[in-house]
Amino acid sequence: MLSLSQAQAAIAAGQTRAAVLGVSVNIAVLDAAAHLKAFGRMDEAVLGSIDVALGKARTAALFGITSEAVWDYCKPGAPAPGLERSNGGLMTFPGGVPLRDPEGRLLGAVGVSGGSPVQDADIAQAAAAAV
Amino acid sequence: MLSLSQAQAAIAAGQTRAAVLGVSVNIAVLDAAAHLKAFGRMDEAVLGSIDVALGKARTAALFGITSEAVWDYCKPGAPAPGLERSNGGLMTFPGGVPLRDPEGRLLGAVGVSGGSPVQDADIAQAAAAAV
Amino acid sequence: MLSLSQAQAAIAAGQTRAAVLGVSVNIAVLDAAAHLKAFGRMDEAVLGSIDVALGKARTAALFGITSEAVWDYCKPGAPAPGLERSNGGLMTFPGGVPLRDPEGRLLGAVGVSGGSPVQDADIAQAAAAAV
Amino acid sequence: MLSLSQAQAAIAAGQTRAAVLGVSVNIAVLDAAAHLKAFGRMDEAVLGSIDVALGKARTAALFGITSEAVWDYCKPGAPAPGLERSNGGLMTFPGGVPLRDPEGRLLGAVGVSGGSPVQDADIAQAAAAAV
Repeated sequence: MLSLSQAQAAIAAGQTRAAVLGVSVNIAVLDAAAHLKAFGRMDEAVLGSIDVALGKARTAALFGITSEAVWDYCKPGAPAPGLERSNGGLMTFPGGVPLRDPEGRLLGAVGVSGGSPVQDADIAQAAAAAV
Repeated sequence: MLSLSQAQAAIAAGQTRAAVLGVSVNIAVLDAAAHLKAFGRMDEAVLGSIDVALGKARTAALFGITSEAVWDYCKPGAPAPGLERSNGGLMTFPGGVPLRDPEGRLLGAVGVSGGSPVQDADIAQAAAAAV
Repeated sequence: MLSLSQAQAAIAAGQTRAAVLGVSVNIAVLDAAAHLKAFGRMDEAVLGSIDVALGKARTAALFGITSEAVWDYCKPGAPAPGLERSNGGLMTFPGGVPLRDPEGRLLGAVGVSGGSPVQDADIAQAAAAAV
Repeated sequence: MLSLSQAQAAIAAGQTRAAVLGVSVNIAVLDAAAHLKAFGRMDEAVLGSIDVALGKARTAALFGITSEAVWDYCKPGAPAPGLERSNGGLMTFPGGVPLRDPEGRLLGAVGVSGGSPVQDADIAQAAAAAV
């Protein structure tokens, strides 16, 4: 089960990485059942990305894969067109990463938004590595 | 009219088929008016597929055709672009199958999610055959 | 963690009790994070009570107490007026019961609707006792 | 303008106070426009109180008064019956406190849920005092 200290460590590591990249982001951490555990919005992060960060984390938690891996199932020509409309709308671009314990069990997910998708994914990986 | 025992038989048959395929799925059965009749989530089924199973069943019940047949109406180049956004959002990939009585009257629909779309459709057909 | 067989046993026990009482009900079983695990609607159960059964189970799962115990917090004169509007709307009358393992850990909740509140609570208790 | 470091200080102070009281709570901090700034759920906090903490903070931020002061406007016999249904539903019991700078300008609000309303308000005041 994801602890608050793990969630806070993930957010701190993500914010450190974001500062290195020079971007201001929102970082959301959800538990394995997609309930909010911790959240932080860096100063200057754009407001519209609050919901995107939450959505990326929710997407990664609900399916246990990265947010962009969900897109591989539903992008044009893929076998699950429309999957992105499930669960109230998924966020299907980089920045959502599942969190797993050493045995591979799902602990939750982190979602990052505010930079470019490439930056967001970089920051999310840094956050996940701290758990 | 779809009975509870029919719905339960559909779910049991679907779960048996899923076990043969080695996947854990959610199976939803709705009546002909798209109201929930019965549901079962197999242990280990991914949480994100609960809503997908319900959505596939709802799509099949509302239009009386399989979920992927709805996609044929709204996919790129088809005559009804945007149909997938009706009814609060349809699930337009395999796994939703209408249930009909021996005279062909619509009884409801079953929706399966948790495996690949091909597996989900296979399981849904097994479930439908038990009604 | 609540298993499918436990959830099915709860629904079967509830349906048996409902038959003894001579009422047709909806029975919903959610896991400890309030995600749907299993559901059954008895033939003749009123459609409006599908959502009520789900809502009672969700209320009991989210707060770990019976649905009517939530009402004790928010009824007129109680210390938490408006709590019932949280979480998209709670169902605060009898019929929602938390499920716990022998050590007292929350496993999920069962929600019953279709009879009188007294009958619903009776059936929910019978369902919970089977877990 | 509320900074992330102020929001984090509020949450840390609230968590410290909650530990003294022996309760596990959710603490939400919103900015003056009611957008999420930071959030933390203590281990063991009840899931249903995530939304309540967010709702109390939103209520306090939107009106610039405590969540229970909003109730004074809409409780039975008060001049604004139904106000509690505005803004998607307000949380109108103790635990939401506005945050102000030394000149009295609104910076945002903190919302706490998980203990009794009296405990939640105590924790929220401790959190607000740290800003």
